[in-house]
Order: sequence, then structure tokens, then C-alpha cells
Amino acid sequence: MAKKLIKREENYSQWYNDLVINADLAENSAVRGSMVIKPYGFSIWEKMQAALDKMFKDTGHSNAYFPLFIPKSFFSKEASHVEGFAKECAVVTHYRLKKDDSTGEIIVDPDAKLEEELIVRPTSETIIWNTYKNWIQSYRDLPILVNQWANVVRWEMRTRLFLRTAEFLWQEGHTAHATKEEALEETEKMINVYADFAENWLGVPVIKGYKSENERFAGALETYAIEALMQDGKALQAGTSHFLGQNFAKAFDVKFADKEGKLDHVWATSWGVSTRLMGALVMAHSDDNGLVIPPKLAPIQVVIVPIYKGEEQLKQITEKASIITKSLEDKGISVKFDNRDTHKPGWKFAEYELKGIPVRIAIGPRDIENDTLEIARRDTLEKVTKSQEGIEDYIEDLLNKIQENIFQKALKFREENTFKADTYEEFKDIIENKGGFVLAHWDGTPETEQKIKNETKATIRVIPLDAIEEEGKCVYSGKLSNKRVLFAKAY
Amino acid sequence: MAKKLIKREENYSQWYNDLVINADLAENSAVRGSMVIKPYGFSIWEKMQAALDKMFKDTGHSNAYFPLFIPKSFFSKEASHVEGFAKECAVVTHYRLKKDDSTGEIIVDPDAKLEEELIVRPTSETIIWNTYKNWIQSYRDLPILVNQWANVVRWEMRTRLFLRTAEFLWQEGHTAHATKEEALEETEKMINVYADFAENWLGVPVIKGYKSENERFAGALETYAIEALMQDGKALQAGTSHFLGQNFAKAFDVKFADKEGKLDHVWATSWGVSTRLMGALVMAHSDDNGLVIPPKLAPIQVVIVPIYKGEEQLKQITEKASIITKSLEDKGISVKFDNRDTHKPGWKFAEYELKGIPVRIAIGPRDIENDTLEIARRDTLEKVTKSQEGIEDYIEDLLNKIQENIFQKALKFREENTFKADTYEEFKDIIENKGGFVLAHWDGTPETEQKIKNETKATIRVIPLDAIEEEGKCVYSGKLSNKRVLFAKAY
Repeated sequence: MAKKLIKREENYSQWYNDLVINADLAENSAVRGSMVIKPYGFSIWEKMQAALDKMFKDTGHSNAYFPLFIPKSFFSKEASHVEGFAKECAVVTHYRLKKDDSTGEIIVDPDAKLEEELIVRPTSETIIWNTYKNWIQSYRDLPILVNQWANVVRWEMRTRLFLRTAEFLWQEGHTAHATKEEALEETEKMINVYADFAENWLGVPVIKGYKSENERFAGALETYAIEALMQDGKALQAGTSHFLGQNFAKAFDVKFADKEGKLDHVWATSWGVSTRLMGALVMAHSDDNGLVIPPKLAPIQVVIVPIYKGEEQLKQITEKASIITKSLEDKGISVKFDNRDTHKPGWKFAEYELKGIPVRIAIGPRDIENDTLEIARRDTLEKVTKSQEGIEDYIEDLLNKIQENIFQKALKFREENTFKADTYEEFKDIIENKGGFVLAHWDGTPETEQKIKNETKATIRVIPLDAIEEEGKCVYSGKLSNKRVLFAKAY
Repeated sequence: MAKKLIKREENYSQWYNDLVINADLAENSAVRGSMVIKPYGFSIWEKMQAALDKMFKDTGHSNAYFPLFIPKSFFSKEASHVEGFAKECAVVTHYRLKKDDSTGEIIVDPDAKLEEELIVRPTSETIIWNTYKNWIQSYRDLPILVNQWANVVRWEMRTRLFLRTAEFLWQEGHTAHATKEEALEETEKMINVYADFAENWLGVPVIKGYKSENERFAGALETYAIEALMQDGKALQAGTSHFLGQNFAKAFDVKFADKEGKLDHVWATSWGVSTRLMGALVMAHSDDNGLVIPPKLAPIQVVIVPIYKGEEQLKQITEKASIITKSLEDKGISVKFDNRDTHKPGWKFAEYELKGIPVRIAIGPRDIENDTLEIARRDTLEKVTKSQEGIEDYIEDLLNKIQENIFQKALKFREENTFKADTYEEFKDIIENKGGFVLAHWDGTPETEQKIKNETKATIRVIPLDAIEEEGKCVYSGKLSNKRVLFAKAY
């Protein structure tokens, strides 16, 4: 914690990168576009995984694991799918290295060329539907409700820690159903699960909707997404759920016999969230002092810092701290007592602000005398002095308040930065000068969407599920429209 | 459960493969040497992961994540390491596909060739030590105690589900220390953690020891391993922990300043277990009826099967089952009530035997009358009829007994199949005709070890940590030896 962060308003992008690195969340690796997720960052991701995994299981899903490599021929079977991913595929062509006899260097053995190249999975629909072919014969085999936690690779040219990396960690759900209705229901169920997680765990309010054709997943008939607003006024897509229709079942010839013995292709969904959520967490809540982590996802929820001179004082404080620690841990609250003598209290305060620990307790000699504690909350930076009596209830309640406050603050920010635009001038002015979400009428054509994108860099984030039917005219073409859609510049 | 398993004594190898597939643990994928881990198999692996992860965290380790890809030049920095892995490396050479203009086929874009090839990690020492270089300046940065859960790829020519696959899942711990003593202590600590897990969770007794030079990890100064005996008399290496000395610190120039400011290279360890443990679980305990899963790792510990005619009986049984389920779940025991009307009780009994569910409860009309239950344990196939009163305590106790019995049975098998050989004739006779572990004197030379391997296919599994000092003569060369080492044919 030697370096101070640059302020968000000075350079938001640099603030983000520096914060991710200084707070020990992640760093760039020696491999182009790939990051190292450091222990502190990974411990937050583990909390996210645990919460999501429980939500998936509570909705009837099981985990499984499918191969990292996908034969090139599989990839080519669903036409729009391969078109969407072809440009960013890492390709394995050989399976052996050897020592070059003349130079002594390690080289790729030219004799070990694969007959068919293997793609490192950018997503797993093709390998999974090839597998499902063997799992599905009749309606009795359906539905299949499977999720996979995995790494995937998409060869992105411009990368940013967590937000866009060549390799990232994610989960991908892949389900198979007997009817269109059931698959659509699943698609919606999972976007609701993601919205629930985003709002109640990440503390990030999201707008649920479906994507325009241009922004759909390659191979999907419908893509649902949740969109969140970051502090710089840009949108971040935080999760997607795809209704794949019978596209992959047709590409891989997956049919089932219904109760009457009639054969039909199976209906599919897929849905995923990734380590990108770490970026959302950082950008939605953090401030110029560092991270602000929602208590439900904080690896350490409470840190206790002793303020002392000499061994005797430290001993007294340590006794007190261990009583408090025990009473908090009994309530399932995670606590760290930082008694390191290598750093001063002020340094520790700054360090834990940077790391986003929700609650800091300081105990000094006066607190020993008065049976008090100083309690500081990270979200508001407020400090209060409290009696030690009943402190565990107070802290438990405070953690809930912080969780709620973080969400409310983000919600207020979003509300203050969501605008309606009725003319293209207004639209351009908001996008260019204010940022934020813009609700505007659109004529429903990919051409108009593309032109707006080219001219303003704003895209349709979603067509909100709760959009109100209202007559209006497309801000670009002036053609009739019956509801507003959500535009923004996006990560 | 249409097909009956072949008996172990008829064809152990086929029994294993059929069991893994029929019990829905895993199957071969369309990608050569890669498997699909099916939901039931994966749910057992998740139990293993959870238990191990807790043990790692309880011993002070944190999880992190490092890149899947390793630049070829990194790989070449530690000479014996690259030599050990070069022959089984999957190599990424290109980063884009495209549509061939003339044929319309999807091909690897020749213009998207990487400047430097990337190796899909077979293990992560090189990329991790390149990262640690930036994390370590002084003794204050040490120790680093990091673990990674990940997929790795080793291009094996002959593969078998779980035991040897081109891609597998594992964890790899990578620690950095200021002193040799501390690194050695860590190496031993982790082999003890693995032994603890193998014996107390997997129910598989293991012999701890260190490897001979021939069998050491590529780049290690010392490799500790735990070795288990399978029912066909072959050994299975179930976990390894490596003392890497300063080899990787030297290869990647990782130095630290001690308290006096003196620079020295950092000391390293690495340790791992993999989905191979699933193979150990299957081969150590299962029988001709199917899997036998230790209760601590069973995704479902108790299954309740109703035996009924008509709705009224089913209703009564369901009521009773739900009371039992509640009382068991309150004790943390996982229960499934299988009320499907598509299958007969006998079919279900066979199915759950195949799947290795530790305890089966059957409830029929007579049980309703008499307030009884029929309880069958999977390990011994014994059945008893019990009063419903206090059944939750009985089952809890029974699960503990099954866990212990599975271990004791495997231990007895190992004891009965561990032999001493004092002559090479004896040695060959045991290896060829009986199988099992053979304790024999060895002259300590790689040459002798290699000759024995060539002639008998037996290798030194470990030099046991608890080997008794005794004078003897090498079974092969007749040279003096001061302790017996453990030989076996191995998976």
C-alpha cells in the first residue's frame, strides 16, 4: 500500500487497473492476454462460486465436466456458431516437443502433427451436444440440467483484467428439454437466478432483458442478459442465458422419442457468468480509497487492529480481541486479528480500506479502560465508538446494513444516470457528455442499430423485460416504435 | 442397469471400465484420450475436492489461478523438467480459424500463427515460478502457500478412464520458502495430508515413502508418494509431494533478501492429487455388484425404496419416509426417496447397489403395520429389520461403521497381499503369480531398478518412510542393502 490510487474522476480506467493490481486481486501474466488471479482475488471468486453453485443446485442442476478440446469439425457444424467464434480460437496442432538435433533447442516436433486440429473451448455447446446425443433417446432422459465450472479461451486482441481476458473462468449451464416452452422457461429461470445473485450478493442492480439480433449469442434464437451500470457511466453485461431452440440438436442430430414414440429434435438452453463479475464488483462499488466488497462476498468481513505501546497493552488487547473474535465467529462472521508488529496501525487502516474489508475494529488502551471499541465501516467510512457488550449483534446487523447500503447506493447511481432521449440530438448529447443508460425508441432493424453504434459507440444493451408499451418514434429513423430499448456504451 | 457386470476375477480390467461407465461415473469423449465426467461421478469428485480443500486451508494454504498456457521458452528453462514432459505436450500454434475461400470449409488461418508456441500446461511449475519472481523480494514475502484447482493435459498414448487420460482435473500446490528445512517440512506435511485423506475419506490404506531417482518428478530433488494396493494386486500412486530444492528458483531467477539483506534463491515444493483418485476409489472397494462408496464421499448416503401396491399404501409409506428423511437430514445425512413408478423395487435395489449407495432402506406394507424398516448395507450386503424408533441414531452409527469397515477390509487385503522376497526367484514368482506389494532389498542403483523393471514389469513404488533398518542383500545383484523397498506392478 505504498502507492496511492489515482482518483476515479481523473482517470477511471487507470484507477480500475491500479486498484485490481494494488488490492492483490489479479495481475497480467507473461502469457498475452491471460491473467493470474491472486489469492485475495480468488478468495472472492470462490465466494461467488459457492453462492452461485448453491443456487444452481437448488434449481435442480448438477455439475459435470466435458473436454477442454473440441475437434475442429464439431465446431463447424452449427454455421452461425462457428462464424461467431472462428476469429478468436486458440488451435492445438501438435502433441509433442523435441530437442532439435542440430541446435539443441526445444522445438515442436513436426512428426507429431494432429490429423484433426483441436480448438481450445471458447464455449462448450458443440462438444456437449455431441455428448448429449448418446445420453438422450426418449422423453424419460429429459430434461438434462447440467452445469460446468471451467476455463475457456477466446483470443481477444484488447484485454483488460477480469473484463476481457484471453482465458477466463466461468460456469456454463447446458440443458436439454422435450418442449420449446420448457426450454424457454429454463432460459428465463436462469436469467432470474443471475439477477438475484447480482442484486443480493454482488449488490449490483441489473436490468433484465433480451438482446437484439446483432448482440445475440452465436447460435441462439434468443439471448437474455442482465446489464449493470458502472460508475463511469458504461454498461457491463453481467450474465447471459440463451434459448438455443433446436439448432444444436439439429447440428448434432439429437432426437428423442415422446410418449407416443414420435421422434423430434431436443430443445436447448445455455447460460453463463464469468470472472467478469469480479470486474463488475470492483467498478460498481469501489472508491478512491480502494475496494468496497459486499459483506456476503468478503473473504474477511471484520478486521481487528490493535493500537498499543508495549507488550502489556498488546496482551490485554489480544485477550479482548480473542473474545470478540470468538463471539463473531459463532455467528458465522469471518474475522482477522492483525497483530503484526511490522506495520503501524495507520498503514493497516489504509491497507484494509484498499482491500475493502467491510468492518474494521480498532482497540486501543482507552478502549480497554472503558470497555469500548472503535468500529469503522468501509462503505461510508464512518466511525463510531461502541460498548463491547452485545457487539456481536451490532456487527451482524451492521454487515447486513452495509450489504443493503451498497446495493442502494448503486441503485441510486443508476437511477440518476438513466435518461430518456426522444431525439437523436438528445441521444448523442447524453452518450457523449453524460454517459449512463439511455432509454430510447428504436425501429427494430439491425441496420439502424449498427448505424447508431458506428456514430456514437452506443449499443442496445437489452430490450428490457419490463419495458412499458408506449408509442414513439425511432430516434434515428423516425419510424414507429412501441417501446423504448436500453442503450449505452459498454465494456 | 440392464447389463450385468463381468466378474472381477474373470476380467478385472473390463470390470473396471464397464463399472465406470454403467455406474454413470464417466465415459470416453469424442476427443482422443479425454473423458466426460458425468454428473454422478462429478458429484463424488466434488466431495473429494471439498474435503481436500478444507485440509489445504486448515494447513494455511490459499487458492489462486494461473494461466492454462505456458510459453515454450519457459518450459525449456528447467532442463530435466522439459525432458520429462516434452513427449506429451499439446501445443497451440495458431489463434484463428477462417473460411477457406475456395472450398468454403473452416480451416486454421495460416496468417494467425503465434510467434511463440504455447504449451497447454501439463503441470504449472514454470508459469508459477515466473510469476513468483515478481511476488518475492524479501523474507517477509515468504512463505507463499498457494494451491490451484485446474485442468491439465498430458498427451498419453494409452488412456483409461480416470487412471490415465489426456486431460485430467487436479490440484497443484506450489509453495515458496526461505529455507531448505521449511520446504522439506512442507513436502512432508502435504504427503501426510494426502495419506490422511486417502485413509480417512477414501478408505484406502496407503504406504508413504519417497521415490527412487528413476521415478522422481521431472525437476524434483525428492518425490514423496502414497501408494495404494488395488484388488488385482497392482499398485496405484495416489498422490505425490515434491521437494524441488532451488531448481525452479534458479531457472527463473527468484531470489529473496534475508534479515541480514543477503540474497539467496528461494526453496520450493509442489504437490498434487487428481481425478485418478476416482479410479482408486472404484478399484479399491467395489465388487461384482457395482460401486462401494465410502459414506463420507457418497453424494447420496441413504436411499429409501417404497414397496407397495396401490396409491393408499404408497401414501402411507411416503408419510413414513418423509419423517425418516427429515430426521436423517437433521443429522446432516443425505437421503433420496425413490418413488418412481416406472421401475420395480428389484430394479431399484440393483441400481443402487451398482451406484454404491451405502445404506438402502426398504419400506413395505408389513413395515407400516409393525413400525419397522428393512435396512441393507452396501459394503457387506447384509440386511436387518429394525424398529423405526431411534432409526436416525442407528443409521448415523451404521454409516460410521461402513466407513471404518471399508477401510479395514482394504487394509486386510493389503496385509494379505504384501510379501517379503529374499531371492530373485521368490520375487519373480510373487510378481508373476500372486501380485501385490513385495518388500525386497535393493542395492540402491538405478541400473538394478531398471533391469528388474525390464524383466518383471515391477517398479519400486516407494522407499517406505517407516522402513526398518535391517541388513540384507539386493535380490537382483546380491550387493549389500540396509532396508527393504516396496516393489509392485503399477497403474
